[in-house]
Amino acid sequence: MTDTPELPDPDTAPASDRRAVVRLRPERRRRGFGPWAYSDEVVLDRRTRALAPGSIVTVEDSERRPLATAAFNSASKIALRRLDADPAAEIDGGWFADRLARALALRETLFDAPFYRLIHAEADGLPGVVIDRFGDAAVIQPNAAWADTRLDALVAALCDVTGVTAVLKNAAGRARSLEGLDDASGMVRGTLDGPVAVPMNGAIYLADLAGGQKTGIFYDQRPNHAFAARLGRGRSVLDVFAHVGGFGLAALAAGATSALAVDGSVPALALAAQGAEASGVTDRFTTMKADAFDAMTALAGEGRRFGLVVCDPPAFAPAKAALDAGLRAYERVARLGASLTEANGFLVLCSCSHAADLTKFREASLRGVAKAGRQAQILHVGGAGPDHPVHADLAETSYLKALFLRLD
Amino acid sequence: MTDTPELPDPDTAPASDRRAVVRLRPERRRRGFGPWAYSDEVVLDRRTRALAPGSIVTVEDSERRPLATAAFNSASKIALRRLDADPAAEIDGGWFADRLARALALRETLFDAPFYRLIHAEADGLPGVVIDRFGDAAVIQPNAAWADTRLDALVAALCDVTGVTAVLKNAAGRARSLEGLDDASGMVRGTLDGPVAVPMNGAIYLADLAGGQKTGIFYDQRPNHAFAARLGRGRSVLDVFAHVGGFGLAALAAGATSALAVDGSVPALALAAQGAEASGVTDRFTTMKADAFDAMTALAGEGRRFGLVVCDPPAFAPAKAALDAGLRAYERVARLGASLTEANGFLVLCSCSHAADLTKFREASLRGVAKAGRQAQILHVGGAGPDHPVHADLAETSYLKALFLRLD
Repeated sequence: MTDTPELPDPDTAPASDRRAVVRLRPERRRRGFGPWAYSDEVVLDRRTRALAPGSIVTVEDSERRPLATAAFNSASKIALRRLDADPAAEIDGGWFADRLARALALRETLFDAPFYRLIHAEADGLPGVVIDRFGDAAVIQPNAAWADTRLDALVAALCDVTGVTAVLKNAAGRARSLEGLDDASGMVRGTLDGPVAVPMNGAIYLADLAGGQKTGIFYDQRPNHAFAARLGRGRSVLDVFAHVGGFGLAALAAGATSALAVDGSVPALALAAQGAEASGVTDRFTTMKADAFDAMTALAGEGRRFGLVVCDPPAFAPAKAALDAGLRAYERVARLGASLTEANGFLVLCSCSHAADLTKFREASLRGVAKAGRQAQILHVGGAGPDHPVHADLAETSYLKALFLRLD
Repeated sequence: MTDTPELPDPDTAPASDRRAVVRLRPERRRRGFGPWAYSDEVVLDRRTRALAPGSIVTVEDSERRPLATAAFNSASKIALRRLDADPAAEIDGGWFADRLARALALRETLFDAPFYRLIHAEADGLPGVVIDRFGDAAVIQPNAAWADTRLDALVAALCDVTGVTAVLKNAAGRARSLEGLDDASGMVRGTLDGPVAVPMNGAIYLADLAGGQKTGIFYDQRPNHAFAARLGRGRSVLDVFAHVGGFGLAALAAGATSALAVDGSVPALALAAQGAEASGVTDRFTTMKADAFDAMTALAGEGRRFGLVVCDPPAFAPAKAALDAGLRAYERVARLGASLTEANGFLVLCSCSHAADLTKFREASLRGVAKAGRQAQILHVGGAGPDHPVHADLAETSYLKALFLRLD
């Protein structure tokens, strides 16, 4: 395997003994080869550095035993992404179709309608790739070089396997720059005419897929929307950081008496209002364009109280450097949220911060509740829905936390 | 407060300045007074040792500032159980009714039918007390001296607030001996004629409340039954450690093609069969009386495979001393369960061990799956249902873990 005189083109090379080999360093501590190997775990020499980003390679251990087929990117901190246990697997249209079909079978078990995260990266066997499905449309994030360079084959398989006819490439993910990829988003198949109607938990949401992350839909909160909706029946709801109305519209569909959606984004609130119309709940739905902290402070000052308060902020602690400030922000959200919650009402606090684990987030939240002079029962801790599976080797990576509290 | 010439009878003494005082030791590290104080955190002298177990006292800090009303038991490691933030609160029928009404309001929000855990001890403001409701009947576990000695008032309030007419006292809990209480179970109100029909997740279960823990119903698994039932639609189900059919009957009600319930208890399986009849699914339901490990080994040997395998064993690691052996048992269950799961099928692994936290349990389970030569996606991690709330100061105590895996 060392006599590779020419490097095969990653897009056309058949799986064969001519395929490039990347070897793991002997001194690395981990046994085997998990979903990834970092650049300091692989032998980087002139030959491997010359491999095009996203090249398909055979991974060998330091004793030249073949371990797996992987994607290689010498420019990325994640140098190897495991693709297949078979060291000679051919990564072609048929391979993509197999992965997609397996992912689709799971979602068809989980959901009655074709609205879900179809591919959740490593856990669905397509490292670095995220695909969200919205009926006949899909948004694909090929956030690793191997997938970006094979986008045509991936999209063709996606359309074949699922029947989707419109595919948008979203290249806004921050991970792309780490892989040396551009940020050029756009349609790669079919067309999209305005926002898509997304049925979920009895409500209908409007998602503007081309408008970017700010106006799409986050499927990960689905079970938490459902749990909150149950709590909101017959109650008034305050939905802070409401986005396109995720919690508020689900609660109204389940029987909440009113919902006030607060967000800083005018386009998001416009979509929330359209969702309220599509859900037939406009008479109970109000929006407020405001900074969330300002709005909560003002509402509390007016003596407003709600039977269910939901705060689903953006990641305050996306990385370790922001952890302390992030936890202070979560504490403040909890304090303000608690001050707006009726006696015996419910407070739902969410975090999508990778750096703040459940224990830290819960402690910050309960500190905030205590500072508001309230006592809490913890009813439930929710995570991301099952269309966001987790790879067995990455079990600690669950990022989404939703804390369901009942206050005295 | 030091001049208490006579100790008031805990059952009749009004809340007054004559009530006994128990003081916290100055050197204790914790600030404030959480749900409990341990015996080494309180000043124990001749006066306090003479207080009858379960006496209602005013708790003071070392500087004689009143902190709360609590129940005191000098014979228990948990010497003080906080009852009320008001240091002079009267613990009478009205007080019980308030606590019960607040707990009831939560359950009526959560569930459509009156079948749930009504009181989950500290988190519902009644330390050491567990009450499960089964329609017009209830099972009460007064596992702390203060509640056991006030059982009449508690049961009277329970019947008043909820309308239940039959109340069984279950005194089998291990905690009772730590409180110096007997193990005499029996009806304390009304009568029970045979098993009770419990509707849950679309199935009907039969619970023999008087038959003891082995043949009752565990409400804590309700959301996990529901999640598994969704996965089992159109699939064959193996329900190991089936008890009265919790997972199997829910899966059949949701559309599983068959369910085989394995348990070592003949009475439990008889109730499971009655539940299958009540649920109208007898044609798809089979029971097997066997040791779970033996049965799984035998079924695997016969080449049997199931679309959904659920293993919900008793606590293998109830306490720290049993942790290593417990984790080995969980690993073995996972290995056997995985070997019985079809390709692309689902494996659900549960633990109700306090000593095995989620990380340890998950690692043991994934080791077992790997030993069976299978790869897993983690779809969901479930906990106890929301009728088992957690006290904010005891947030680390979630004992129930349900790991939902999809195998390759």
